Amino acid sequence: MANIAHTVHVGLGDRAYDILIGDRLLDDAGALLAERFPGRRYGIITDDNVAKAQLPRLLASLDAAGLQHSEIVLPAGESTKSWDLLGQAVEGILAARLERGDLIIALGGGVIGDLAGFASAIARRGMGFVQMPTSLLAQVDSSVGGKTGINSPHGKNLIGAFHQPKLVLADLSTLDTLSPRQFASGYAEVVKYGLIDDEAFFFWLEENQAEIFAGGPARGEAIARCCAHKARVVLEDETELGVRALLNLGHTFGHALEKDTGYSDRLLHGEGVAVGMVLAHGFSARQGLAPSQDTGRIVAHLKKAGLPTTLAEVPGTLGSTEALMAAIAQDKKVSRGALTFILTRGIGRAFIEKNVDPKAVSSFLDDMRG
Amino acid sequence: MANIAHTVHVGLGDRAYDILIGDRLLDDAGALLAERFPGRRYGIITDDNVAKAQLPRLLASLDAAGLQHSEIVLPAGESTKSWDLLGQAVEGILAARLERGDLIIALGGGVIGDLAGFASAIARRGMGFVQMPTSLLAQVDSSVGGKTGINSPHGKNLIGAFHQPKLVLADLSTLDTLSPRQFASGYAEVVKYGLIDDEAFFFWLEENQAEIFAGGPARGEAIARCCAHKARVVLEDETELGVRALLNLGHTFGHALEKDTGYSDRLLHGEGVAVGMVLAHGFSARQGLAPSQDTGRIVAHLKKAGLPTTLAEVPGTLGSTEALMAAIAQDKKVSRGALTFILTRGIGRAFIEKNVDPKAVSSFLDDMRG
Repeated sequence: MANIAHTVHVGLGDRAYDILIGDRLLDDAGALLAERFPGRRYGIITDDNVAKAQLPRLLASLDAAGLQHSEIVLPAGESTKSWDLLGQAVEGILAARLERGDLIIALGGGVIGDLAGFASAIARRGMGFVQMPTSLLAQVDSSVGGKTGINSPHGKNLIGAFHQPKLVLADLSTLDTLSPRQFASGYAEVVKYGLIDDEAFFFWLEENQAEIFAGGPARGEAIARCCAHKARVVLEDETELGVRALLNLGHTFGHALEKDTGYSDRLLHGEGVAVGMVLAHGFSARQGLAPSQDTGRIVAHLKKAGLPTTLAEVPGTLGSTEALMAAIAQDKKVSRGALTFILTRGIGRAFIEKNVDPKAVSSFLDDMRG
Repeated sequence: MANIAHTVHVGLGDRAYDILIGDRLLDDAGALLAERFPGRRYGIITDDNVAKAQLPRLLASLDAAGLQHSEIVLPAGESTKSWDLLGQAVEGILAARLERGDLIIALGGGVIGDLAGFASAIARRGMGFVQMPTSLLAQVDSSVGGKTGINSPHGKNLIGAFHQPKLVLADLSTLDTLSPRQFASGYAEVVKYGLIDDEAFFFWLEENQAEIFAGGPARGEAIARCCAHKARVVLEDETELGVRALLNLGHTFGHALEKDTGYSDRLLHGEGVAVGMVLAHGFSARQGLAPSQDTGRIVAHLKKAGLPTTLAEVPGTLGSTEALMAAIAQDKKVSRGALTFILTRGIGRAFIEKNVDPKAVSSFLDDMRG
């Protein structure tokens, strides 16, 4: 029926769900929902940018299927992942008198997915929700796996819940409305999957990068491969007690940089991850764990995607190394005071190291500031 | 070792936990925690009243066991179950740099247990917590079963999570510091267990009420029987998709009255439940479902406990029947617009009725206003 190009199943028992990937799926959303979830009402949470670009299509599709809905439109931007707007989203759900069996739709990028997912997790002690990711970052990463949450003044994503969606609809046509910078930011997370444990995927990306950026069939395939990778990891370790932490490759450094730049447009999430992945590889090379030519190859690939790869490329004045180290220590991937990092033995060979010496990290950062 | 008089096990698989009931257990808390959860740090969340009465004992006990701890003291009262104080509790946990493997202690009554439990559920996407209930209400009801949350302007407990504690320590000596009114309020929930499906327990309460109020061994036994009852229900239906709703006997009416009185000292939770249980029995009798002499027997028992049993006894001016009905409709135990009530065929014979006619309820309330 619908334009579904790829289906990825996340087989989490009674919380299993499908990720549907295809062109113009938002136009089919009403029919797809009516078929899978009869008799529900819908609360759509989105931001003002996405509301302009995509909401009319979704509403038309829900109306055509005869589905009842209400909308909550929040401001766009990472600062939306706050207590204030979480409260606004949850109270909006209650004000719309949505019941525990109704469904929330998260229509937007990673920020909206995280916030709306968390709001669904806590409204009426847990309602179901559907992810409709409209950014590359959200389609390959944040919409899959059930991590939801908001930011704290103490750090990113420190408040939240594990709450799996009931369905993910990734409409490829929404990516055409992204700026090149936003698309590149999401691409950093695509590259991450190759770097973690899939060297062949990294090589495939090197071959197909142009087609992915141009919007050919390789784009949908790349997204499906990322979702399948993430689904596999989530199946193995839903609440991140072990291997799921590998998905944080580049994120400990990246989060510290994001915090330092005030979670602003100065540095998008994927840009922080790009720099963070290069730092993680560089630090691993410095420790004699990984060949330094791998770092060079990664840098070349990320540069071609238009992504920053060094601390010097982070716009504005960077905080002190001490401030960055404090942010790293507050990251939630800390256990018993020892620093946990995702390090690597080379492309596709990342591993969890729970006992990283803070002094080594600090002196490495000093050197990298140049 | 410790003064444990009763142990109730809640056998929820990998989320199983014990409820320990006994005199002066707070003095043994440090040793009990050190034995069960080696190597953790503790974040204590309490309110200013309980901090004065009980915190020094708990701190002394943790110190004696060599356990590290930090404290977050919030204002006392139902209005503490708000977004603002939830934020304060969660940010306090993060500021204390407690890690995902550390434990939160909820030291206080139902408000603190609900709030601290919810804060634990969402800080770092889920930390473990220990309930140390200091009110009768919390010991027999809210500390067991994992319902946590805060209130919304739209209604009570509409925001929250199912998050089971790792241990419940019910120290009987804390009940000696309660006012008679607070103790009676908690007793309403004790009576509720008899009314739901345990006529023999209700008869036992009629026999032993004096000893329970005086603090004899029947008090600990009553609490243990309530916890065992609740544990059994939670095992059967953890997330309230079915039979757990029976525990809401008297609560739909009760919550509407609490909302109407502004969640204030005008009407304590258990007082609302007491009136609500009488209304639920009265309404059932009016519908020809239950013998009206049962209502009389319940009224007599609750009166002896010093509890209100009629709308006229709710202090201040009651809102209109329409306002009460709106509060009832917003209660989260609503499904597809039909009113769900816990009705009864008599003492110990409660049942879930999903199709209650709002008009019948509204005209019943009109009559009960007298």
